[in-house]
Amino acid sequence: MSSLLVDNIGELVTNGAGEGPLGIRRDAAVLVEDGRVAWVGPASYAPAADRRVDAGGAAVLPGFVDSHAHLVFAGDRAAEFAARMAGQPYTGGGIRTTVGATRAASDDDLRATVRRLRGEALLQGTTTMEIKSGYGLTVADEARSLRIAAETSTETTFLGAHVVPAEYAGRPDDYVGLVCGPMLAAAAPHAKWIDVFCERGAFDVDHARAILACGQAAGLGVRVHANQLGPGPGVQLGVELGAASVDHCTHLSDADVDALASATTVATLLPGAEFSTRSPYPDARRLLDAGVTVALATDCNPGSSYTSSMPFCVALAVREMRMTPAEAVRAATLGGARALRRDDIGVLTPGARADLVVLDAPSYLHLAYRPGVPLIRQVLLNGVPQ
Amino acid sequence: MSSLLVDNIGELVTNGAGEGPLGIRRDAAVLVEDGRVAWVGPASYAPAADRRVDAGGAAVLPGFVDSHAHLVFAGDRAAEFAARMAGQPYTGGGIRTTVGATRAASDDDLRATVRRLRGEALLQGTTTMEIKSGYGLTVADEARSLRIAAETSTETTFLGAHVVPAEYAGRPDDYVGLVCGPMLAAAAPHAKWIDVFCERGAFDVDHARAILACGQAAGLGVRVHANQLGPGPGVQLGVELGAASVDHCTHLSDADVDALASATTVATLLPGAEFSTRSPYPDARRLLDAGVTVALATDCNPGSSYTSSMPFCVALAVREMRMTPAEAVRAATLGGARALRRDDIGVLTPGARADLVVLDAPSYLHLAYRPGVPLIRQVLLNGVPQ
Repeated sequence: MSSLLVDNIGELVTNGAGEGPLGIRRDAAVLVEDGRVAWVGPASYAPAADRRVDAGGAAVLPGFVDSHAHLVFAGDRAAEFAARMAGQPYTGGGIRTTVGATRAASDDDLRATVRRLRGEALLQGTTTMEIKSGYGLTVADEARSLRIAAETSTETTFLGAHVVPAEYAGRPDDYVGLVCGPMLAAAAPHAKWIDVFCERGAFDVDHARAILACGQAAGLGVRVHANQLGPGPGVQLGVELGAASVDHCTHLSDADVDALASATTVATLLPGAEFSTRSPYPDARRLLDAGVTVALATDCNPGSSYTSSMPFCVALAVREMRMTPAEAVRAATLGGARALRRDDIGVLTPGARADLVVLDAPSYLHLAYRPGVPLIRQVLLNGVPQ
Repeated sequence: MSSLLVDNIGELVTNGAGEGPLGIRRDAAVLVEDGRVAWVGPASYAPAADRRVDAGGAAVLPGFVDSHAHLVFAGDRAAEFAARMAGQPYTGGGIRTTVGATRAASDDDLRATVRRLRGEALLQGTTTMEIKSGYGLTVADEARSLRIAAETSTETTFLGAHVVPAEYAGRPDDYVGLVCGPMLAAAAPHAKWIDVFCERGAFDVDHARAILACGQAAGLGVRVHANQLGPGPGVQLGVELGAASVDHCTHLSDADVDALASATTVATLLPGAEFSTRSPYPDARRLLDAGVTVALATDCNPGSSYTSSMPFCVALAVREMRMTPAEAVRAATLGGARALRRDDIGVLTPGARADLVVLDAPSYLHLAYRPGVPLIRQVLLNGVPQ
């Protein structure tokens, strides 16, 4: 059993016992054994260890938990982005462009994209990253998307109900039948979660409920893309079904907020999507003040939010959604863990996975205070320096 | 004479002859000799060279020219930032906090901060970075700030008129006398430019004009911090004095825009400051449509914009100021060069300095399309791979 001590930490964010909402400890050290946090305490009491990581007086945080990302795709949509910035609205219709490119791509091409983006995110401090399918939309393409995703993450999500593909135009019932039948059967062995894009132009509430119920019956946990482009029934459907998370939450009624406040369902906010579609941001303050658990995630995808940067999302959350820096960092770590129903990540307390980041900065505040600057000096994943 | 060939370039931004406002060339190569661009042309006609940089099909751009940065300081103001995000307005008053810390710092501490931030910016593609004084505000502290700045950049700016220091409170005439007299004499040997913060609460138009005129008489070029916090005379003063650039330009009258449109003075926009002070952004569209030359810069400083990231500023300019991605990239390269009255940087044409960046992306569009993501794969500075 090899051990590693992270010490000379100026500010340790534990999300557990400590000062303020981030459970901050100063002059602390963290002992890692077998990929887990074995001990956290004052540096002067630190046990001996085989190896040492000197944090140089910097801040140390739990690795970011990005609970919403679409990494299995081919092609890019830079031209669509440029057109949108010149005034064209975002309707989600471009998803079909990526579906065509994804179906035409080889397994190796898809794998290379997943690995490239996962690697890019890791360098930016993301130690857990959920990966969705949803650009295959055939039985074979959804199954291979999830098989490839599962090579890189245990947090895989079947999103066959991302959009009705062109070949089922005008026949959504038939497509829902395919999703609930052979597509789910082929996808489920590689997936932990099921997700639906419940939105005008995508899937209505009855279709969404049917698909999520089938997924639950197959042993998958529930997540929902809800209330992104306008008000709708997605959030309340998610709460009704005991979803781990409802994601986007840009357009919420008072009843939606009340439903979330009395449930364990997390509201996952994706400010990269509002940034890249030039849309109004969700009202994080309203959710937090109502007692809702909020997560931040990237929504990394080639259409509406092609960022893999959790620090960027933290900075946006503070600037645009009036979260405090502490609330934003908590949402990007512990919030993401809760959105994935995980209690072994998002915290740096004994027993947790030793996923942690050393910043090039003395405080977590710098993630918002220094927007756009790469501030991740070192990442430990499962206790292993990357 | 050693030569280096950059080839396998998918998209070359020249800001010279080529397609569109960025002068784009495809399948091009760039020959570098003695730190200069010696030849640009089709890859299939490329001359032989001693060394090769394979761009791997990626986009290659001129290095970013960051024409507005305050790097000589000590301490940080993360707590002030957090308070501001909780609702306190930005008034510029916190500058005095940094003045106190800067005066108390050793030369080596100041030098280490300049080098750290300059290095951080270089990794993000900035190959030219202007550096201002302005946190010393004594004869000795301004002179040493500029001496230290000049170790790192030829683009040094004397900003003794950043704010009236506390010991001159109520005696601005006396402070202006100091700035124009012994402080300028001590600063000028290390400075290329003179700058004034012309704003309510800082220096009024008469003081600003007096200071800038003294600087001109001492051989310094003129730049002005103008119209940041409210409407004011700064922009028109800059045009009157033939300033290379007026910076911020957040609150402009029609007369201000007209004055800029008929002058060679560049309007330098600093969206990092609006991001980090949660202020309304300047209207870049109005300036561009009037024919004004626009530059983008970081305003890197510990109070109002602690970012060193030109890619972040490009992404903000597109999202928030309705610049096209091409306009934003041009403003961050050629625009910055014009704001510094330089014709050897900001372009990749024969004779230019071989300052260039290779992106981790196939197109310059990705700088806006992939916000927050570190996309700089390689930097050549004076033809030397960093």
